[in-house]
Amino acid sequence: MFRNFKMVGQVVFGRGCFNQLADILSARQGKTASFTVFIVDHVFQDRPLRERIPAGDRDMVIWADTTDEPKTAAVDRLAAEVRSHAGRLPEAVVGIGGGSVMDLAKAVSLMLTNPGSAADYQGWDLIKNPAVYHAGIPTLSGTGAEVSRTTVLTGPVKKLGINSDHTVFDQIVLDPELISGVPTDQWFYTGMDCYIHCVESLTGTYLNAFSQAYGEKAMALCREVYLGDPADRDDKLMMASYCGGMSIAYSQVGVCHALSYGLSFVLGLHHGIGNCVAFDYLEEFYPEGVAEFRRMMARHRITLPRNLMAGVDPAGLEKMVDVALVLEPLWENALGKDWRQVMNRDKIRQLYQRM
Amino acid sequence: MFRNFKMVGQVVFGRGCFNQLADILSARQGKTASFTVFIVDHVFQDRPLRERIPAGDRDMVIWADTTDEPKTAAVDRLAAEVRSHAGRLPEAVVGIGGGSVMDLAKAVSLMLTNPGSAADYQGWDLIKNPAVYHAGIPTLSGTGAEVSRTTVLTGPVKKLGINSDHTVFDQIVLDPELISGVPTDQWFYTGMDCYIHCVESLTGTYLNAFSQAYGEKAMALCREVYLGDPADRDDKLMMASYCGGMSIAYSQVGVCHALSYGLSFVLGLHHGIGNCVAFDYLEEFYPEGVAEFRRMMARHRITLPRNLMAGVDPAGLEKMVDVALVLEPLWENALGKDWRQVMNRDKIRQLYQRM
Repeated sequence: MFRNFKMVGQVVFGRGCFNQLADILSARQGKTASFTVFIVDHVFQDRPLRERIPAGDRDMVIWADTTDEPKTAAVDRLAAEVRSHAGRLPEAVVGIGGGSVMDLAKAVSLMLTNPGSAADYQGWDLIKNPAVYHAGIPTLSGTGAEVSRTTVLTGPVKKLGINSDHTVFDQIVLDPELISGVPTDQWFYTGMDCYIHCVESLTGTYLNAFSQAYGEKAMALCREVYLGDPADRDDKLMMASYCGGMSIAYSQVGVCHALSYGLSFVLGLHHGIGNCVAFDYLEEFYPEGVAEFRRMMARHRITLPRNLMAGVDPAGLEKMVDVALVLEPLWENALGKDWRQVMNRDKIRQLYQRM
Repeated sequence: MFRNFKMVGQVVFGRGCFNQLADILSARQGKTASFTVFIVDHVFQDRPLRERIPAGDRDMVIWADTTDEPKTAAVDRLAAEVRSHAGRLPEAVVGIGGGSVMDLAKAVSLMLTNPGSAADYQGWDLIKNPAVYHAGIPTLSGTGAEVSRTTVLTGPVKKLGINSDHTVFDQIVLDPELISGVPTDQWFYTGMDCYIHCVESLTGTYLNAFSQAYGEKAMALCREVYLGDPADRDDKLMMASYCGGMSIAYSQVGVCHALSYGLSFVLGLHHGIGNCVAFDYLEEFYPEGVAEFRRMMARHRITLPRNLMAGVDPAGLEKMVDVALVLEPLWENALGKDWRQVMNRDKIRQLYQRM
């Protein structure tokens, strides 16, 4: 059985296309005269983009604090807030931000139409009802959240996505102007999420020609952006993220993403930097990818945090191992069907202890 | 204003995934207990694929004669036939074949829900009502019809597509096994449709980073397939066609496609071979592309028909010029906003006279 991959409904790409958001939404709002929820990265509270958000009087603008990655409790709280706003469901949920904000928008749109807590749906294909119409507008590129069928959440017992066809955005707005001016560290860490996706996808056992075409293109674009100096750097990085996300359709990420989830869960490390920290110790699995990653780091004078384990007690370390080990599709993609013969608690613990 | 590009709803890719068609359709048929229309290239009437089509007693299987490219009159006739089959609309229309058959399936699904003749809708965004759910299953790769928002039809006065968001397939099934065993000439001509797409898209004035990413990947895959000898040749060609089709989202084809439309209208030449005939005379516009195309022809011992104009009377030639000249977006993409300063009836006539 091959996955019947659900695609994003509509995509608009172009410098300045954010200005079309009002038209895109009003075409829909006409239908129900309901309201729109904008979930926006709080960094834009005092930036010019704030004034360009096409929110009317009856709409909600929620400033999302992205200091921590999205938690299931926050999703539940926001969904309750939206539900009580006007006594009816919104017409649309729009996420404007990086992967965290887009994932939050996806999760809230799902939890408006599905009972219980977001934590109940962490896993694969557990969602029963279609979400409220939801749109994603990246202001950071690399995660692939704009095209993925997951929304990655930290719950009470695990960091795991809500993986579902209903998670996929109905609309994405890809405006390269929105990702200019990101601080270099964040630009690098988030972009490396895409690069590491590609390394893990292209060397994985799940790969097919569909994922390979997208993965190769995303990787070529990452090389242009991080090792070259193209004039349309932002456009290319935005397309790299899109293609990297699409490459996961039939493949999977691998060892680095599995370990990164553990780092995020216990240390609260953001996904992008968590990936970079882990990847730097994975020469054994991805020799060429790690070597090229280090060239990219050197070129942009990136210094990774070290000795992260100094502040982790034995129980914390075991929890990290738990979080990583549960991600079976990632291990199988990286190491094959017999992955348990080469990977176990001891080996994962040793990898973490070097970080 | 940037186009808000409508994507194919779902895509399944993989060797043998045609076997999942029954499951995909039955998930939908359950909803309405209506019937499905399969429009299938007539070459499969006596091939094993015939027995694998999941048609039940109440379904319709229409064998499409692809000797000629689809005509608006044929679309109207088929839509009437389907409408009278059970006194209700079908649940789904499934096209199984090359570009002609996929376009026929798209057009029939549109004309089941829109009044009048298909000829009334040749142009851009004239369709008012959503189509019946429609799925495309390519058995030839190169046209990009599987992802495009057009269905190219020859009408009483013009060859022109029905370009609409409603034209886009709800589902595509990409099974590389289905395109193995195509005769070399047809495999070459149809694949070159993709290659020429890419040349025209990548050198065009409409290009942006979205179309460039897809166009470059499609072209790289075409080179692997037609100048190399990859083990997964069919998989790669299928992805080339998909990416080539996606590259048209924000770009356009150009001089070659414009001239090819005239050749098809007057001489009845199929689109793929028409493109090849025209492209071989377009060194002036696409020097590198034409040179590489000739290397691909030589490698596969392809001989193009010559002296096609011998049988065309002056009125026929003027009609060709009319058909080509009306395709303004193609000329503008190829030659810029001031294209009328370098291209006119005389110049087009001269190009045709060499063929």
